[in-house]
Amino acid sequence: MRVFQIEGEWGIDNLKISTRPDPKPGPGQVLLRMSASSINFRDPIVPERAYGSQSGNLPLIPVSDGVGDVIDVGAGVTRVKVGDRACPAYFQTWISGEPNANRLTQSLGGPLDGTMSEFMCLSEEGVVKVPDYLTNLEASTLPCAALTAWSALVECGRIKPGEQLLIQGSGGVALFALQFAKMLGARATVISSSDEKIERLKHMGADATINYRETPEWGKAARALTDGRGFDHILEVGGEKTLPQSLRCIRPGGTLSMIGILSGGAMSTSLGLIITRQVKLQGITVGHRDGLEAMMNAMAQHQIRPVVDKVFDFAELKASFNYLKTGAQFGKICISHDR
Amino acid sequence: MRVFQIEGEWGIDNLKISTRPDPKPGPGQVLLRMSASSINFRDPIVPERAYGSQSGNLPLIPVSDGVGDVIDVGAGVTRVKVGDRACPAYFQTWISGEPNANRLTQSLGGPLDGTMSEFMCLSEEGVVKVPDYLTNLEASTLPCAALTAWSALVECGRIKPGEQLLIQGSGGVALFALQFAKMLGARATVISSSDEKIERLKHMGADATINYRETPEWGKAARALTDGRGFDHILEVGGEKTLPQSLRCIRPGGTLSMIGILSGGAMSTSLGLIITRQVKLQGITVGHRDGLEAMMNAMAQHQIRPVVDKVFDFAELKASFNYLKTGAQFGKICISHDR
Amino acid sequence: MRVFQIEGEWGIDNLKISTRPDPKPGPGQVLLRMSASSINFRDPIVPERAYGSQSGNLPLIPVSDGVGDVIDVGAGVTRVKVGDRACPAYFQTWISGEPNANRLTQSLGGPLDGTMSEFMCLSEEGVVKVPDYLTNLEASTLPCAALTAWSALVECGRIKPGEQLLIQGSGGVALFALQFAKMLGARATVISSSDEKIERLKHMGADATINYRETPEWGKAARALTDGRGFDHILEVGGEKTLPQSLRCIRPGGTLSMIGILSGGAMSTSLGLIITRQVKLQGITVGHRDGLEAMMNAMAQHQIRPVVDKVFDFAELKASFNYLKTGAQFGKICISHDR
Amino acid sequence: MRVFQIEGEWGIDNLKISTRPDPKPGPGQVLLRMSASSINFRDPIVPERAYGSQSGNLPLIPVSDGVGDVIDVGAGVTRVKVGDRACPAYFQTWISGEPNANRLTQSLGGPLDGTMSEFMCLSEEGVVKVPDYLTNLEASTLPCAALTAWSALVECGRIKPGEQLLIQGSGGVALFALQFAKMLGARATVISSSDEKIERLKHMGADATINYRETPEWGKAARALTDGRGFDHILEVGGEKTLPQSLRCIRPGGTLSMIGILSGGAMSTSLGLIITRQVKLQGITVGHRDGLEAMMNAMAQHQIRPVVDKVFDFAELKASFNYLKTGAQFGKICISHDR
Repeated sequence: MRVFQIEGEWGIDNLKISTRPDPKPGPGQVLLRMSASSINFRDPIVPERAYGSQSGNLPLIPVSDGVGDVIDVGAGVTRVKVGDRACPAYFQTWISGEPNANRLTQSLGGPLDGTMSEFMCLSEEGVVKVPDYLTNLEASTLPCAALTAWSALVECGRIKPGEQLLIQGSGGVALFALQFAKMLGARATVISSSDEKIERLKHMGADATINYRETPEWGKAARALTDGRGFDHILEVGGEKTLPQSLRCIRPGGTLSMIGILSGGAMSTSLGLIITRQVKLQGITVGHRDGLEAMMNAMAQHQIRPVVDKVFDFAELKASFNYLKTGAQFGKICISHDR
Repeated sequence: MRVFQIEGEWGIDNLKISTRPDPKPGPGQVLLRMSASSINFRDPIVPERAYGSQSGNLPLIPVSDGVGDVIDVGAGVTRVKVGDRACPAYFQTWISGEPNANRLTQSLGGPLDGTMSEFMCLSEEGVVKVPDYLTNLEASTLPCAALTAWSALVECGRIKPGEQLLIQGSGGVALFALQFAKMLGARATVISSSDEKIERLKHMGADATINYRETPEWGKAARALTDGRGFDHILEVGGEKTLPQSLRCIRPGGTLSMIGILSGGAMSTSLGLIITRQVKLQGITVGHRDGLEAMMNAMAQHQIRPVVDKVFDFAELKASFNYLKTGAQFGKICISHDR
Repeated sequence: MRVFQIEGEWGIDNLKISTRPDPKPGPGQVLLRMSASSINFRDPIVPERAYGSQSGNLPLIPVSDGVGDVIDVGAGVTRVKVGDRACPAYFQTWISGEPNANRLTQSLGGPLDGTMSEFMCLSEEGVVKVPDYLTNLEASTLPCAALTAWSALVECGRIKPGEQLLIQGSGGVALFALQFAKMLGARATVISSSDEKIERLKHMGADATINYRETPEWGKAARALTDGRGFDHILEVGGEKTLPQSLRCIRPGGTLSMIGILSGGAMSTSLGLIITRQVKLQGITVGHRDGLEAMMNAMAQHQIRPVVDKVFDFAELKASFNYLKTGAQFGKICISHDR
Repeated sequence: MRVFQIEGEWGIDNLKISTRPDPKPGPGQVLLRMSASSINFRDPIVPERAYGSQSGNLPLIPVSDGVGDVIDVGAGVTRVKVGDRACPAYFQTWISGEPNANRLTQSLGGPLDGTMSEFMCLSEEGVVKVPDYLTNLEASTLPCAALTAWSALVECGRIKPGEQLLIQGSGGVALFALQFAKMLGARATVISSSDEKIERLKHMGADATINYRETPEWGKAARALTDGRGFDHILEVGGEKTLPQSLRCIRPGGTLSMIGILSGGAMSTSLGLIITRQVKLQGITVGHRDGLEAMMNAMAQHQIRPVVDKVFDFAELKASFNYLKTGAQFGKICISHDR
């Protein structure tokens, strides 16, 4: 089968199209013919062995997110059948319950082989059937980005209708968070870098917006939008530069879902506010398979369509990485395996 | 009535014994004759107006924690009766439920008048009856330090039997946390600065200990005590210097209860671990009155005795502050109003 | 002031228009001029002393739900100001947190005087400011019926988007539950006694419906609507007759919110299914004031309008009770104090 | 291998010692040589096909609880190794998270083959390593009875220190509940049928006891033990006859863990109290594997020893069933596979 893999030595230059033997499903396993992949910030840095030993061993097939058609199943499989479409779960062994060391390490695209492959052979426990209304490209975006937003707002955040949520930016997780916020009945304020993006965010249902280039100290402006009360929940995507602003506009007892460090990974802020306002900082790392299933079920009921920004050919993986790094995208960047 | 108050201008030099008119309880109010107070790190810095406008207005009676005898009640009071002993709640209007701005600002010892007073007149909703088995000095330690430990471990932390807890130091909150951990069936590891204190901690039931002067990089040693698995819960007292160590030994999905910043208030740590290990940092600021009541009930069942390190006379308030700042204490520092 | 009260002896015949002295707000109290009331099944039976000593003492002003204009406030009041509209909370002392004996007994319309009064004087803690978009009649329906639905689905039920909810009937609580289910992103199936009501329920957003007169064994039909999986949550309004059907269509691990006993108060069902399917039966009795406030906030964001079936004049209280008992209503029955 | 199995037709008379081929572990599987089993009320009725199609197909090996030595492992197994002891989980596919239809049906001893076998071959996900301090007989009691108590009090009940728990009887689940209650810091009241058993219960730490033969209307007496406040939590073992008494002594907002129907499976009680006191009835059906693991971990820390009442030989299975039905036992009834 055709694969993309990092081979020989670590490094983006060693990421190449290659071949491997076709896999066969054993008992309890399913065989997927992959139709689409979708990339996240983690994917371009895995080839540089950015996660150390947790990056896995070479050769390694990159990219965690994708979707495929079930074309064969092993003995005893009941969760899907031939002809279904299915997404692999980001964490293959985190089925449900609390995270632990094992559950948080068996991730696709490093250390386990990822989705940039003609076929994938996985435990039936590690895949989820995809609702019919989604295209392949749309479905490919769900395992990491959408589930991160779902875990933050629904599983961990337990946001209630009428609560105030602040979302940072218009990347993959941010747009899912906006869509889920509307589904949950929450009030969503989004900060963004351009008026053009803000127009699109409003069109998607953002209740309020702030251009953070025009208002770099957006924490105060954001708080004003809540009549001074502060946000119940903030989806913290930026990290280093955004956290101090977020702490200015979170309400006492509120929650910061820590999901990214796009503006830097160092945390240099005062601890005092976290304590005296009884704020919770909740790290979020994707989520479990039961969550992925529940999320797809909710999305199907509401016919929520992931926002696909741009589609690359299978052979254009590196070009897609470069585009991702520009930060120009609005929503998700996908790879079509059929072209 | 005799009071200690900051008068004229802010500053520890303006903290003096003075007099005020005796209060009378209105409908729904209770009158306490205070018998003991207990001090916390916040108390010596309030006189410097360290909390800004949240410090309150002058003259201000300092100190948040204490206990008194109910000597009169207003119309309609049912929660206590004359002859009972009662502790005022740290936050007078946070009765139950989620914190909010109002509930987190009505605290004793600034902006509201505190316990260093002959009498206190309070809403019956803001006091809790004290179990008989406690002495006055012991009871005076409960409203802030004990409740902070209770909120961290029980209300927010929901620690289960068999879970692993790491506690920093042997101050007021830390010792209550150790006592509560044993009551909860958890396994408690305590880090401390001296072998002498460690002996006392073991005597109180610490399952494991680390001398952090001998092992400054205690994170790794602590993790080893859990067979590499990491702690389910860490009571983060130190802040700046301890947080990086705590992040090394917390388990994936674990909780850091942020309750103090004794080693510094700046947070300079990597956000990456918080996200990838799905760690929760939960700010804890004392707790609500229902929690104070539930905690006293649990303490009475287990006959838990607060550790009183040293007792000062009413007139020696400033001396007690100076002693607190040395950090030499093991447990709580109290003030007897009767001497 | 003009009041309706049960006087002399218990019994509906002793429910009469009468007068009492005008009240004056003390410290922390607010004075409301009542503009509308709304009735619930409890209201017509309180005059018969159906709740025993918990019914209160005579003379008693009946009816728990209503709304009024704040026309005066006592010293120290901050939650509302003159000119606001406010609803009294059903349970005057259940502000937040867990229920307890005291919190569940201080209810309006028995044992405390209710809303069928020209004025009400209440603690500011016992009232909630009403959003502007609601009419007085609409606002009068919120304290008991709407809050019961909110507590069942949001506070206790924690329903997630995409979950399946079954609602029984089209009474007050049921219609609020339908409106809240849509706000929460849940899927709502409603059972009703007539095709005419079913048409209206569909118009309000019901995703599926069953006419239980045509299908008395509706449990099986309802389960079929969930592809055999069963409902995550059922709002149990009927009690005796409906519970066995509900147990047939609840999913393993699902929740029955027990809110009424319209078909009878005896419970005669097999316990086996409750245990082997790990079903939860959660009794719901209105809710706390923090919930009332959060609910109004959510309703305002979504501009949810209570369904008012019919409006009676103040003097027509008994006629409104008789109409309620027919069960013909679709939504709430209100009393205008201005006519 | 030697097995006990129901063969030919359903019926206790067809329960016989027989042989089957020795199993071999496939990838991800473990092979256990069983050393002990323990019986529950379900085990003697499965042979009568009391659970209908859920009883499974013939031939069927009965009994759900046991322990064995790991004597072989298939490829990729990491959870246990040869030489470990392990208990099979009662529900083989309920690893963690919420129950669902699949997770609640894959139980040992029907429909899946049970522990009365020389060897068992199971997925590594379906077994839990046993702590060293337990004997084989003690360990054999954990999968169903102990986990049911743990799920009721810890996972679902989240009992806090100082809370009041009432336990019915001195059977397997009841004694574990008593031991866990002490570990949790709760206050345990136990009702029992004889003064002799009561003596033993006190010795095990029961804080209060009631002889329900002497006081058949024990609900009132039990409430009096809580100063009229009522119990926070009741472990409802009896069902039909005990539920009305339990509803008399549960506190408003309290929880009844429904775990058995020893006094009858019909529920004939008034629904009114459940609603007006906001009581929760929580069905409990054993629990998930993560719970079994957490429970063993907690038990090991506290060195909790299961109470073994009587031990039968492997060949005496039917005699053990007969003894179980007498109700005379205090704790668990075990089967030694070595005799």
